[in-house]
Amino acid sequence: MDVKKSQLNKIFIDYTFDIKKFVHWLQKNKIKILAIQLPVGLRLQSLRLVEALHEELNISVILLTDPCFGACDIPMNKMKQLAVDGIAHFGHSEIPSCPKGDIPVKFLELKTRVDPLLLLKKTKHIKELKNVFSPGKKIGLLANIQFIDYLEQMKDYLENKGFNVIIGKGDSRIKHNGQILGCNFSTAQSIANQVSGYLFIGDGRFHPLGVSLSTKKPVLAFNPFNDNLHNIKKFKEKILRQRLGAIAKAKEFKSFGIIVSTKPGQNRMDYAKKIEDKLIRHGYQSTILVMENINPEVLDYLPFNGYINTACPRLTIDDYLLYKKTLLSPIELEIILGVRSWEQYQFDEIIS
Amino acid sequence: MDVKKSQLNKIFIDYTFDIKKFVHWLQKNKIKILAIQLPVGLRLQSLRLVEALHEELNISVILLTDPCFGACDIPMNKMKQLAVDGIAHFGHSEIPSCPKGDIPVKFLELKTRVDPLLLLKKTKHIKELKNVFSPGKKIGLLANIQFIDYLEQMKDYLENKGFNVIIGKGDSRIKHNGQILGCNFSTAQSIANQVSGYLFIGDGRFHPLGVSLSTKKPVLAFNPFNDNLHNIKKFKEKILRQRLGAIAKAKEFKSFGIIVSTKPGQNRMDYAKKIEDKLIRHGYQSTILVMENINPEVLDYLPFNGYINTACPRLTIDDYLLYKKTLLSPIELEIILGVRSWEQYQFDEIIS
Repeated sequence: MDVKKSQLNKIFIDYTFDIKKFVHWLQKNKIKILAIQLPVGLRLQSLRLVEALHEELNISVILLTDPCFGACDIPMNKMKQLAVDGIAHFGHSEIPSCPKGDIPVKFLELKTRVDPLLLLKKTKHIKELKNVFSPGKKIGLLANIQFIDYLEQMKDYLENKGFNVIIGKGDSRIKHNGQILGCNFSTAQSIANQVSGYLFIGDGRFHPLGVSLSTKKPVLAFNPFNDNLHNIKKFKEKILRQRLGAIAKAKEFKSFGIIVSTKPGQNRMDYAKKIEDKLIRHGYQSTILVMENINPEVLDYLPFNGYINTACPRLTIDDYLLYKKTLLSPIELEIILGVRSWEQYQFDEIIS
Repeated sequence: MDVKKSQLNKIFIDYTFDIKKFVHWLQKNKIKILAIQLPVGLRLQSLRLVEALHEELNISVILLTDPCFGACDIPMNKMKQLAVDGIAHFGHSEIPSCPKGDIPVKFLELKTRVDPLLLLKKTKHIKELKNVFSPGKKIGLLANIQFIDYLEQMKDYLENKGFNVIIGKGDSRIKHNGQILGCNFSTAQSIANQVSGYLFIGDGRFHPLGVSLSTKKPVLAFNPFNDNLHNIKKFKEKILRQRLGAIAKAKEFKSFGIIVSTKPGQNRMDYAKKIEDKLIRHGYQSTILVMENINPEVLDYLPFNGYINTACPRLTIDDYLLYKKTLLSPIELEIILGVRSWEQYQFDEIIS
């Protein structure tokens, strides 16, 4: 097939992916039956993708529709049992240190067509950057996967404007320089003692919040989708008040469920067992709860006062208000048990 | 341990299970780490169960909290990966022909303490039975798992009252004589040519509806939980009108997603592939969709006009109104494609 003329170029309107590498992977692995994971927002385009693969490469496609929140959540073993030849995950980059299954998986990073540099060049944004980061001080430049390809260009531009920019390198859970996951801020930490603050490129407030909590440094978040540049400080203070409230409330609790996820890249069973031992030693009732999906319909109807979440750390903070029961991180439990002070508050991360 | 004095006798208020067999199984399999599946309604009692097993048998318990709708839905492979020694499933009876995993599973059937015979003995119920089933005609007696132990007594009683009662035997998906599953009515079919109708003991309208649709015979449903005996006829007619409407609507559709479940006892991938071939031969756009959980949040946001459900057959009928998109059974698709007539309408079943 001719990659340039392929219908695969026309699947997604707002995103691109590396079609050449995808086709090479399909052919190298002799994929005849392919399971595909797509972000929810792009599933309406799935029929075009199915048809292009079938017509141009004679590949049968199976769409995986269970919710998937990251590269931590690839159902290798389930697909092995279904005699699928491989999984193509659209959206996230690989988490290099995640457990591998017995089935080939291709991570097709989706890159937005929105150019963040074009937008950041606006005078008001540069002015705001100068307000927060005094000249001469180093800035750490970070992004989520959608904007990762623009980081070097942005670094060059900002240095021309007089900023001193540095791009960090994460631990073995992180694929790209400068990249941030919702559960791992090691890229920011790697340069924390060199920078006075960070500029994060991406949507959502959770990733820059995590950087700010994990490094205790100022973070400006630039969202190219709505051209908004803002300081995460106030949001961080609001969340910290909320966490302090959750911890205070949980000091009255007598029982905790410990959440463990069966998703391959979120499973921290050993950590959960240590937490269970610790809770029992401290006189609490406690049981490990194993689940694929974590939601209020499940947790609100179990006989525990609160939960310690060892699965996706984002849920504890981001989805906190969705639950009637109190969700806490393992680090927050240490504060409740008196083995860590509030001043030593840290974000829970899954590190490699 | 002394089984009679065990705290295990005090776990559930309204249900009993075979504690002796449970303890024997735990000891025979040298279970140290046990995963437990409990019906949602009994999860508030889970902490007592966890503590009794820990204190009396030194067993560590992990609670499985993902939704579980039957013995078709035991996560053997996931638990194997978590190094659990065995799974205890409380509620349903084993489906003998279900695929087995590499981990021991104990099915602890929960039997209600409500005595259905005591309630059925009431004059008004016996009168209603006589109204529907003329004397001398044979009645098939059926139940769901909660009441299965009472069937022989009920047969004796009804025969003393002048009825002619017979209890059928299901296919290899069915554990007990007289037992009905939501996806398998083979027990009723096994005696269909001998009986003039059925008496079903259990809660909910779905099981007796399935018996009625699958055998075309009158079915009286007796729900001991609310002491209600009623003829399923009107409900059946309502559901058939709904199904006829769904089929008529789907005749305009151009695309179908074919639902396949990853739950071990619901997986019908081979069947789904045949349906996909058939749809494509008939000029439809069609793709197989693989999921663990089937819900409107997923199906309503995919680019298909309707869905053919090869997973739990109950969902197509019972949850039909929850979905914006139209769910159909594989048998209903045959009517849409013109290879089956409406008069040959049947219920979809998972048979062994």
